[in-house]
Amino acid sequence: MNNHLTRERIGFLAKDYSRGFIKFCGLKASVIQKGFFESTVVIGENHRTQDNFIHAGLIATMADHTAGYAAFTTVSENLRILTIEFKINFLKPAYGSALRCRSQVVNRGRQIIVAESEVYDMREKSETLVAKGIITMMAVPAEKIATG
Amino acid sequence: MNNHLTRERIGFLAKDYSRGFIKFCGLKASVIQKGFFESTVVIGENHRTQDNFIHAGLIATMADHTAGYAAFTTVSENLRILTIEFKINFLKPAYGSALRCRSQVVNRGRQIIVAESEVYDMREKSETLVAKGIITMMAVPAEKIATG
Amino acid sequence: MNNHLTRERIGFLAKDYSRGFIKFCGLKASVIQKGFFESTVVIGENHRTQDNFIHAGLIATMADHTAGYAAFTTVSENLRILTIEFKINFLKPAYGSALRCRSQVVNRGRQIIVAESEVYDMREKSETLVAKGIITMMAVPAEKIATG
Amino acid sequence: MNNHLTRERIGFLAKDYSRGFIKFCGLKASVIQKGFFESTVVIGENHRTQDNFIHAGLIATMADHTAGYAAFTTVSENLRILTIEFKINFLKPAYGSALRCRSQVVNRGRQIIVAESEVYDMREKSETLVAKGIITMMAVPAEKIATG
Repeated sequence: MNNHLTRERIGFLAKDYSRGFIKFCGLKASVIQKGFFESTVVIGENHRTQDNFIHAGLIATMADHTAGYAAFTTVSENLRILTIEFKINFLKPAYGSALRCRSQVVNRGRQIIVAESEVYDMREKSETLVAKGIITMMAVPAEKIATG
Repeated sequence: MNNHLTRERIGFLAKDYSRGFIKFCGLKASVIQKGFFESTVVIGENHRTQDNFIHAGLIATMADHTAGYAAFTTVSENLRILTIEFKINFLKPAYGSALRCRSQVVNRGRQIIVAESEVYDMREKSETLVAKGIITMMAVPAEKIATG
Repeated sequence: MNNHLTRERIGFLAKDYSRGFIKFCGLKASVIQKGFFESTVVIGENHRTQDNFIHAGLIATMADHTAGYAAFTTVSENLRILTIEFKINFLKPAYGSALRCRSQVVNRGRQIIVAESEVYDMREKSETLVAKGIITMMAVPAEKIATG
Repeated sequence: MNNHLTRERIGFLAKDYSRGFIKFCGLKASVIQKGFFESTVVIGENHRTQDNFIHAGLIATMADHTAGYAAFTTVSENLRILTIEFKINFLKPAYGSALRCRSQVVNRGRQIIVAESEVYDMREKSETLVAKGIITMMAVPAEKIATG
């Protein structure tokens, strides 16, 4: 397996990452490597809970979507990634000014791809691990994916 | 245990449900009972993926937040609900015009509350179960919750 | 889809259920229907923890294996079921004289099958739900499964 | 926090690890450090499936129990560890002559402790990661734990 992504592919993935709901939520790709993907989001009022924490739903969205793109870096371009299921533990409350998510593929089977995501809360002077997830995905030919 | 919520409490919960990130995502409370909570969201372009499906992150957010409010109906008013972790399976692709989430408390321990959430895709002629999750939460005194 | 299992198939599944580690643990099939499987185990000293509870590992084994056979009732005979992952919540301590597990298929995709398992603790006068799990499986042709 | 366990405590934990169901399954402690626990099991016929793989239930039992003892190394001696829930992904089939499990505490909250377990299959010439789990536990005073 070639361990490098072309510059063109990296450009495509970075742009493709931030569409639809993900663009709406403000998440952006920051580091892209074969089997690894990092993303960030600057936190605004729209990301918080009634108690001023960053909402678990945003953290979960980031953990899932970034894992999906970590998986996406490992498959050929005509495949798409579907999330079968994920599980996420919220380790500490998140309340900082930004989040950073790092997703790493831990197993690449013929069809099933498993990745881990770690979400860090960017606080004034430090970066704290606030959530950790395992995401199970499936690589599917693009033509098999169609709504309706 | 009193099995009824006061009208005042129901009004409070309905309003409290849709704040911050949840308001931003457009989720709204629809049915509130002791140990049960139902919510809905009308799907717009901002909720979709690059392939036009409803994003798993929105579905997970709904499953988590609605479970949190199902748990919230079972505790005294000075307690808050924190999500410890959740797991969600995506059973079928979602692409309809709205989602409905039904969350039911399955176990109410002294501190740990477990709920299940089922998310339904509202299609033209039917309502299809598209995701199912188990959410583990903790009831914590409000004064112990503070950012920073 | 034919909704009935032949008597022969039921006999095969009942016997096949209790082999290797499962036989060693004492688990037995009790009810077999299309998409549903129930098992039981009489609890002995070998099933307990240092604190005299029934060990979570036994409960998880039962939840996983019984879900696998619930899935097995839905596929053709030349397929095998592999567990991709599972998640289980332990709702209450288990300490009774037997356990009963009920597993139900909740979604049957082309390849991915999802089932839920509920484990009940058989106490003197009642049957109490002590654990609940979601199990994600894959149906694979038998010839693709071979050790080493 | 003192980062060393006394020799006496290590001896106690090693012995305490292998009781009841765990002794029955043949699991043994191999490395014990603050926040980390390693265990092994030599595989026999009783640990296998009908297809000669090592049973997922044994792997899950090992992941859960070893995580429990990793957590146990971080709390005072009058506390006990209860598993609230766990999730485990089976990455590759296991068929070797022994398993090794390494569990690491990833977050130590006031009450909630989260650990990760990695299970390795010991094959003729290599050690292969076959399963990975996240385990959520709770530290509870010993006197609050009693059957019946």
